[in-house]
Amino acid sequence: MALKLSYFDIRGLAEPVRLLLVDKQVAFEDHRIARDQWAEIKPKMIFGQVPCLLSGDEELVQSGAILRHLGRVHGLNGNNETETTFIDMFYEGIRDLHNKYAQMIYGNYENGKDAYIKDTLPGELARLEKLFRTYKNGEHYVAGDKESYADYVLFEELDIHLILSPTALDATPVLKKFHERFAERPNIKAYLNKRAAINPPVNGNGKQ
Amino acid sequence: MALKLSYFDIRGLAEPVRLLLVDKQVAFEDHRIARDQWAEIKPKMIFGQVPCLLSGDEELVQSGAILRHLGRVHGLNGNNETETTFIDMFYEGIRDLHNKYAQMIYGNYENGKDAYIKDTLPGELARLEKLFRTYKNGEHYVAGDKESYADYVLFEELDIHLILSPTALDATPVLKKFHERFAERPNIKAYLNKRAAINPPVNGNGKQ
Ligand SMILES: N[C@@H](CCC(=O)N[C@@H](CS)C(=O)NCC(=O)O)C(=O)O
Ligand SMILES: N[C@@H](CCC(=O)N[C@@H](CS)C(=O)NCC(=O)O)C(=O)O
Repeated sequence: MALKLSYFDIRGLAEPVRLLLVDKQVAFEDHRIARDQWAEIKPKMIFGQVPCLLSGDEELVQSGAILRHLGRVHGLNGNNETETTFIDMFYEGIRDLHNKYAQMIYGNYENGKDAYIKDTLPGELARLEKLFRTYKNGEHYVAGDKESYADYVLFEELDIHLILSPTALDATPVLKKFHERFAERPNIKAYLNKRAAINPPVNGNGKQ
Repeated sequence: MALKLSYFDIRGLAEPVRLLLVDKQVAFEDHRIARDQWAEIKPKMIFGQVPCLLSGDEELVQSGAILRHLGRVHGLNGNNETETTFIDMFYEGIRDLHNKYAQMIYGNYENGKDAYIKDTLPGELARLEKLFRTYKNGEHYVAGDKESYADYVLFEELDIHLILSPTALDATPVLKKFHERFAERPNIKAYLNKRAAINPPVNGNGKQ
């Protein structure tokens, strides 16, 4: 089934989807919408927004729904109901953090960045680290031995927080090691190297 | 499996879960946390927040993860991958609307309510109505003949918008009819009658 992922030429909400597809070697067209094309494309989108994954003739929008769909289709959704729900909870927890991050990036970067790093982030990461240790003490993936869609989202979330603050993970060693390990996966590593040469913006307003 | 749903004594993020459980006649303890108990309970919650569904000895948090779990367990998650993904997309679309609603309710009620009703809401509802007509022209449920977890979320979302503005659904007749039909389901109707006598706040700050 031909896949086409449409999003802006930034990392944003599409990057975890790209990482998943690249890692699982699922071929897809990485359609990057130029800003001056957006006015024409926006009205065609179900909720007027992207990311949008065109899968055959099905139009999938909503980053969460896209990730869970790919999780089911590519065996990245846990081995049983308990794991599937755990992965989902974990993903939603990352998303709550990402919303706080995005609020700061888009709404209060200059005045809010330091307080975000100092006051908001440590508690959020400590909670994620604790949850990450549920399975196998966090030695492998979110749900233990097998990777899931939440691992791609977690990796990207940690990665952009290291850009925001290079010492962000110093107090959460288990998450830090996960980030290091995950970056060494061959397909991820090759992608990160290629991406580094292009260096697309993390966020739509160029702040990071 | 004994179920206990913990949340504040408001409708908020728990009400769609309550509606689902009531409609499917799944027994659960409807634990309403008093404000002065919260300081003690908060640190015990995985992300420091509620709703939390205790299912046997599993602690489930994150409203989205709870709903999808119940969807899978109670046959409210579509008949195939296409339906499951559609239901998920639809749910996420409602959630984007709810976030805008919550921002107005909690952040800008006095000055923002009228603009929200006049400028934000109509476009959002029109998009949901269009999507709702995908299956069977919207004559039954989000995914056609069979109800899904998204129907409970949609019903509650429409219901609170009718409290905000009694004419909110006048321009989206298909959603309006869905809301009327759904309120007539026997278990929902009995619950709504009982709830009306108590009339719990819709939102945590008492605005609606
Ligand atoms: N809930 C949606 C949010 C999508 C969203 O916010 N998309 C933004 C880019 S990150 C967008 O399309 N903005 C352009 C616009 O709204 O016109 C999701 O998770 O996919
Ligand atoms: N993403 C979470 C958000 C949960 C949330 O915002 N909970 C609020 C009530 S609606 C809460 O627990 N507030 C109290 C607090 O944060 O101390 C979900 O969907 O369940």
